[in-house]
Amino acid sequence: MKNIGILPPLLALDLILRDWLLEDIGRGDRTTQGLLLGKKSVAGEWIAKAPGIIAGLPLAARVFQLLDEQVSFVALASEGESCQPGQVVAQISGALEALLTGERVALNIVMRLSGIASLTYEYAAQLAGLDARLVDTRKTTPGLRVLEKYATQIGGALNHRMGLDDAVMIKDNHIAAAGGIGKAIAQIRSNVPYPLTIEVETETLEQVEEALQHKVDIIMLDNMQLDMMRVAVQTIRDRNSQTKIEASGNITLANIRAVAETGVDYVSTSAPITQAKWLDLSMKIRV
Amino acid sequence: MKNIGILPPLLALDLILRDWLLEDIGRGDRTTQGLLLGKKSVAGEWIAKAPGIIAGLPLAARVFQLLDEQVSFVALASEGESCQPGQVVAQISGALEALLTGERVALNIVMRLSGIASLTYEYAAQLAGLDARLVDTRKTTPGLRVLEKYATQIGGALNHRMGLDDAVMIKDNHIAAAGGIGKAIAQIRSNVPYPLTIEVETETLEQVEEALQHKVDIIMLDNMQLDMMRVAVQTIRDRNSQTKIEASGNITLANIRAVAETGVDYVSTSAPITQAKWLDLSMKIRV
Amino acid sequence: MKNIGILPPLLALDLILRDWLLEDIGRGDRTTQGLLLGKKSVAGEWIAKAPGIIAGLPLAARVFQLLDEQVSFVALASEGESCQPGQVVAQISGALEALLTGERVALNIVMRLSGIASLTYEYAAQLAGLDARLVDTRKTTPGLRVLEKYATQIGGALNHRMGLDDAVMIKDNHIAAAGGIGKAIAQIRSNVPYPLTIEVETETLEQVEEALQHKVDIIMLDNMQLDMMRVAVQTIRDRNSQTKIEASGNITLANIRAVAETGVDYVSTSAPITQAKWLDLSMKIRV
Amino acid sequence: MKNIGILPPLLALDLILRDWLLEDIGRGDRTTQGLLLGKKSVAGEWIAKAPGIIAGLPLAARVFQLLDEQVSFVALASEGESCQPGQVVAQISGALEALLTGERVALNIVMRLSGIASLTYEYAAQLAGLDARLVDTRKTTPGLRVLEKYATQIGGALNHRMGLDDAVMIKDNHIAAAGGIGKAIAQIRSNVPYPLTIEVETETLEQVEEALQHKVDIIMLDNMQLDMMRVAVQTIRDRNSQTKIEASGNITLANIRAVAETGVDYVSTSAPITQAKWLDLSMKIRV
Amino acid sequence: MKNIGILPPLLALDLILRDWLLEDIGRGDRTTQGLLLGKKSVAGEWIAKAPGIIAGLPLAARVFQLLDEQVSFVALASEGESCQPGQVVAQISGALEALLTGERVALNIVMRLSGIASLTYEYAAQLAGLDARLVDTRKTTPGLRVLEKYATQIGGALNHRMGLDDAVMIKDNHIAAAGGIGKAIAQIRSNVPYPLTIEVETETLEQVEEALQHKVDIIMLDNMQLDMMRVAVQTIRDRNSQTKIEASGNITLANIRAVAETGVDYVSTSAPITQAKWLDLSMKIRV
Amino acid sequence: MKNIGILPPLLALDLILRDWLLEDIGRGDRTTQGLLLGKKSVAGEWIAKAPGIIAGLPLAARVFQLLDEQVSFVALASEGESCQPGQVVAQISGALEALLTGERVALNIVMRLSGIASLTYEYAAQLAGLDARLVDTRKTTPGLRVLEKYATQIGGALNHRMGLDDAVMIKDNHIAAAGGIGKAIAQIRSNVPYPLTIEVETETLEQVEEALQHKVDIIMLDNMQLDMMRVAVQTIRDRNSQTKIEASGNITLANIRAVAETGVDYVSTSAPITQAKWLDLSMKIRV
Repeated sequence: MKNIGILPPLLALDLILRDWLLEDIGRGDRTTQGLLLGKKSVAGEWIAKAPGIIAGLPLAARVFQLLDEQVSFVALASEGESCQPGQVVAQISGALEALLTGERVALNIVMRLSGIASLTYEYAAQLAGLDARLVDTRKTTPGLRVLEKYATQIGGALNHRMGLDDAVMIKDNHIAAAGGIGKAIAQIRSNVPYPLTIEVETETLEQVEEALQHKVDIIMLDNMQLDMMRVAVQTIRDRNSQTKIEASGNITLANIRAVAETGVDYVSTSAPITQAKWLDLSMKIRV
Repeated sequence: MKNIGILPPLLALDLILRDWLLEDIGRGDRTTQGLLLGKKSVAGEWIAKAPGIIAGLPLAARVFQLLDEQVSFVALASEGESCQPGQVVAQISGALEALLTGERVALNIVMRLSGIASLTYEYAAQLAGLDARLVDTRKTTPGLRVLEKYATQIGGALNHRMGLDDAVMIKDNHIAAAGGIGKAIAQIRSNVPYPLTIEVETETLEQVEEALQHKVDIIMLDNMQLDMMRVAVQTIRDRNSQTKIEASGNITLANIRAVAETGVDYVSTSAPITQAKWLDLSMKIRV
Repeated sequence: MKNIGILPPLLALDLILRDWLLEDIGRGDRTTQGLLLGKKSVAGEWIAKAPGIIAGLPLAARVFQLLDEQVSFVALASEGESCQPGQVVAQISGALEALLTGERVALNIVMRLSGIASLTYEYAAQLAGLDARLVDTRKTTPGLRVLEKYATQIGGALNHRMGLDDAVMIKDNHIAAAGGIGKAIAQIRSNVPYPLTIEVETETLEQVEEALQHKVDIIMLDNMQLDMMRVAVQTIRDRNSQTKIEASGNITLANIRAVAETGVDYVSTSAPITQAKWLDLSMKIRV
Repeated sequence: MKNIGILPPLLALDLILRDWLLEDIGRGDRTTQGLLLGKKSVAGEWIAKAPGIIAGLPLAARVFQLLDEQVSFVALASEGESCQPGQVVAQISGALEALLTGERVALNIVMRLSGIASLTYEYAAQLAGLDARLVDTRKTTPGLRVLEKYATQIGGALNHRMGLDDAVMIKDNHIAAAGGIGKAIAQIRSNVPYPLTIEVETETLEQVEEALQHKVDIIMLDNMQLDMMRVAVQTIRDRNSQTKIEASGNITLANIRAVAETGVDYVSTSAPITQAKWLDLSMKIRV
Repeated sequence: MKNIGILPPLLALDLILRDWLLEDIGRGDRTTQGLLLGKKSVAGEWIAKAPGIIAGLPLAARVFQLLDEQVSFVALASEGESCQPGQVVAQISGALEALLTGERVALNIVMRLSGIASLTYEYAAQLAGLDARLVDTRKTTPGLRVLEKYATQIGGALNHRMGLDDAVMIKDNHIAAAGGIGKAIAQIRSNVPYPLTIEVETETLEQVEEALQHKVDIIMLDNMQLDMMRVAVQTIRDRNSQTKIEASGNITLANIRAVAETGVDYVSTSAPITQAKWLDLSMKIRV
Repeated sequence: MKNIGILPPLLALDLILRDWLLEDIGRGDRTTQGLLLGKKSVAGEWIAKAPGIIAGLPLAARVFQLLDEQVSFVALASEGESCQPGQVVAQISGALEALLTGERVALNIVMRLSGIASLTYEYAAQLAGLDARLVDTRKTTPGLRVLEKYATQIGGALNHRMGLDDAVMIKDNHIAAAGGIGKAIAQIRSNVPYPLTIEVETETLEQVEEALQHKVDIIMLDNMQLDMMRVAVQTIRDRNSQTKIEASGNITLANIRAVAETGVDYVSTSAPITQAKWLDLSMKIRV
């Protein structure tokens, strides 16, 4: 099944892409504008230079359109498709100036997102056949939250919360400051939007028990040994069939399947984003 | 000698950091604000969890100050210092809310920049004792150009141009479109700010020759074999003692020293940015 | 128990308040600046002119501080306190220009929010002694979402979702477009952040049944007769003790208690926001 | 005669509407985007659910166009037209996603503005057959000044000044600070743009006299008893045929006609804005 | 008597000054930051290099404070004071980096505004002893409207309207489009804020007559010969003692006094802004 | 040969032009909108009223298009063409409202830029037949840097650096702070982007010598007497054929040719910008 990613509306996206173009262009593309050949029409291809999972081509198309509405950028690879070195993933044509001025920004976006999608895909593949789903975290490059989380979707993950405002995550510091899980939850429940899910981080079985007593929606098992994790999962399942269970902490390609096999619903890790290298692509145009 | 990095003025930086905080906070930090303990004062540390080169702590300090001017964030490691797992790199104290709300954004910045500085340091170390200097490229995460290039400085590189407007870089497409190196340079020289440096990408000795004839300021030897590169360097040195020579293309930790030993002045590579993993750090606070 | 409202961080708030000040000031406060007495120091009071619940005084304080950091604005009534005509709710002192230039914007905010808090309080009071909680909706004045929802908190309501992105609400059109509740939920679950709560609007007992089968987190009983609502509540309680139940549609001061007595957990209505009149306040200063 | 309202240019309006859409959408419309049916084309109607005066439909049309240029939104009721419950006031068709994502923002605007137009209409109707005109004030919801004042125009009022910069209004505090009406006017006249009108608030006949002596353009009779108001009007008419007279203070539907019959030119009140309830409308689409 | 100018509130001003600093600084002040001596404290002076009228020093002070709150900038010349070559007009001290980075922007502002103030002063001086006042126009450098009009105030002019929204100015095209002065005024009066002044441009005595019939507030005599202007003034005075009269069109230093002596109230000209040269100033610091 | 100027990309330009339109329009064009004839179609011309060099017509076209995409604005004079009084330089047609609302902003831009181009042309003409090129400076009106430098290009100048970040310029204060030219250069070279050109200001032959020793790219001869300048040029040419030489300081139309004849490569002066008067143009439309 193909993975689906959700992009923000153009209304929001255009503001970001415009800022990124201006970051590179500054007061003008001296080289390309200096040629005084801006309207010359050319065509070319985007070519993968390494194997991986493609993500972000619709953003590249939009980058060029923001520079010049007449540019045609046709993706030949669909989002989430695996590509091979030398594969043409998109065809582009339009005014020389738009193509050369937008090239670097468009490539930077797609190379970064494809790198993330590719590594996410490797993590997700480890969970093949299991019910557990891979989820990401809030460790994302500042300014790229929604797009990097789009890339993990494309790679096969589900998104965790998108920010500090769309779910409650009670960590050790919150618990300590409030004087216990129960007090923290009571306090928070009285003033957050009522549909918000409440998740609690637990590191011991005692904390799992306390979280169960206060009927949190999601219990995170943080950095637990596999044995303890299995006990925790069993305890939770026995007590409340609707509580979701998330494992987290030091997840690697080597251990993710074992963690998932403890029976948790979700395994969260920042690795697909923080450990990803860019997927190499280049643009070749025929002048 | 300690590496120095230049940050943009606070005037510009604050706008970026504010946007990044708002990206994470959205309509409010439900968990922390929900505790209703915002003014409670706490203290803690930032701790390295892996070996590497620290970069970005002044930015972390500013992130917290934007949330609450009363927060104290004291770096114990200076920018560019190597750190070990478990090392306390900064001490922080202030209102609980500011610390927990700003934590993720501040850490994301420093982890990303330190990851870049660390890998840059490895590349730069390969050039020890040689005159050639490591330089970066425009392959940077959109929105983070100035900060990622700050991190390469901290790691030991010099910056290449910061955008499309502070130097001219004539590539194959520009040459083809203009009808030759000479025509491209003449056209560009007639309308760019006169102090701008002109660099030309060359892939053959014929192109090197042509670039020399038109007195470009910098000649890039792109993807040349070492033998050809040595000939090119000799040719350029013989002809013009002031022309700067930059090697580029498929630079790796394995080959960078050999490339540098051809006698070029600069070796440029995007690897320290596009191949960097984040350096792991965490914040521990005592409530 | 006093109601608590959560305001967005100053970082975000200041941007909004600044825009609102500039909307009124335009190119300058011709009258006050024209007096050339800007630095003259004066003092005064904010006085309630009608009975109601006060909300928004911290915002008024910030408005004046944005104009002049030296202004002192001390609230004498706490947020959520009921006030009587003639009651002094705040004392203010500082430069004449800051006080007169900021007066209208500051009053407009507090009058609007206090009007909402006052009407919310009337609705909430109808639920005294019941478990059901009053909640608001997304019918808020454009640009004032977080602040108007702060006011409903102050008046005694819980907030419903803050926007389209912090919870899923499946309405009739979504169901029809997807081809049924089950298909809609399956599709949405596969691509939204996993902690997001899913709520479904139902108008018939068949739809309630279908929602239960797909284990939605919240079932909204929309515009149901009280008899049907009671059956629905019983059905849901019998089937899943954790499903939250929300009643909605044509809620009035006259019928809200009867609706709540059906046993639902939440009663949502836009009335405290869309039907609220401003609470009258004025500023009196002594020159 | 149909009332005419003046909207700001699209250039300015689009910035506001975009912000309002982003306020609601946040990081994405999870429900609608989650259906993955965005391009599905649907059609529907906007229906009035209560009697009133329609205002704001051109803004609703623009909201949808900002999301998707292909949306067709055709107003069936003209601005200022009175509508009945059940009346179809607009037809809409286009992509499902644009319609559902923009629905709430578009409705919120029209419901708020129509509520204002409806109440304004009631006030204006009290002045039927008289020369006096109803005018609004600066008591407007922050951020909505130009649009709420558009709605009062549609309801039958004239606008008073739009901000602190397009007319001078000298109030008691200004007079006291300057040391008298004469000194205040002299000071202000020396440094404001010369075409600006000067209005003075008066509460006594002595102040009216003083204002006349200094040839102000508009005299406001603030909170005067009807008897005193009649004397004031006569005094002003006798002395200067061009001075405009505005009555203000505690205007209600019950007393506005009596106030107007004193012979004043304008009656100003914030009631049509601060006392207005939203006019209920809904969108029905056929999927 | 000293001329007074009104600056916009800091809230608005800071946004403009920040943009102007960033326009010059771009990604960083390579030279000054490159010295790595930013915190070194220095002191210096601002020196006039030509005779003229000083305007804008408070803005210069603010520019430096935006870069570094610790900078001290003390004006020795008050706004509107005439200065001589070599005269020290301000003393400055603070961090080297703030002084050198802000120097150009601060000087550019003061040189431009002082140039305008100086030329305005020459025009205003021609009217010495007459009742007529010099006024400016909307021919201002885009983005500098409020500041350039501040400078004309400082030079001795009154401001005309600040934009298209704070007064009505009916020109020949408006009259032609509406089908006559009367129709234009009737149409406009029905939908503009009621306190707005209405001015009409007239080129013939017939138009003056028509304007008088419709009781416009200001009649502009545009490009009339002095003889005709005298007749127009007399006609207007005879008919309505409150109508203001403005002369405009091809005003020069040579003819402005003769124009004023026709008895008009105001003489408007763009020359002090469009014909002004910058007043030369420089900053000298002692390192 | 026709002069070429490079404009920033539309992406950046539109943001500036929109701000400028909003500065003038404010809350609405009361006069034109008040006529309620916005869609009436009209046509007209732009006419030069004085001799000079035209610059900025493409910007005028864009201003009108931002108000209304249907406006046709056809330049009859190409950028840099000299015009005579009475000459029609552009034809315009479209909706009355767009034409009248945009008129002032569009004219202000073109009048300012044409004034600069015209005076630049006079300076450039003095260098006819010489190798030396005229260059501008950073003395530009805040907010108009790229456009005013576009105008100097159109008038026949080359641009100097565009801001503080695209070239290094070491002035006396930098030298003094660093402790000498050599130390300043060493420090700066270690942390600026490597392609940046380094220019040093010199006032004596000793400083010229020192600059040569440190191989700066450009030596500025600042305020030197012609005799000394000739010696400096000879010294530099003898020592390094690639060093560029720029003369600066008190350049006038009277002395610029003599300065250029000393053999320098560039003569820089702010006069074409700071001493320029606006070129008078007007718009005539037929209603």
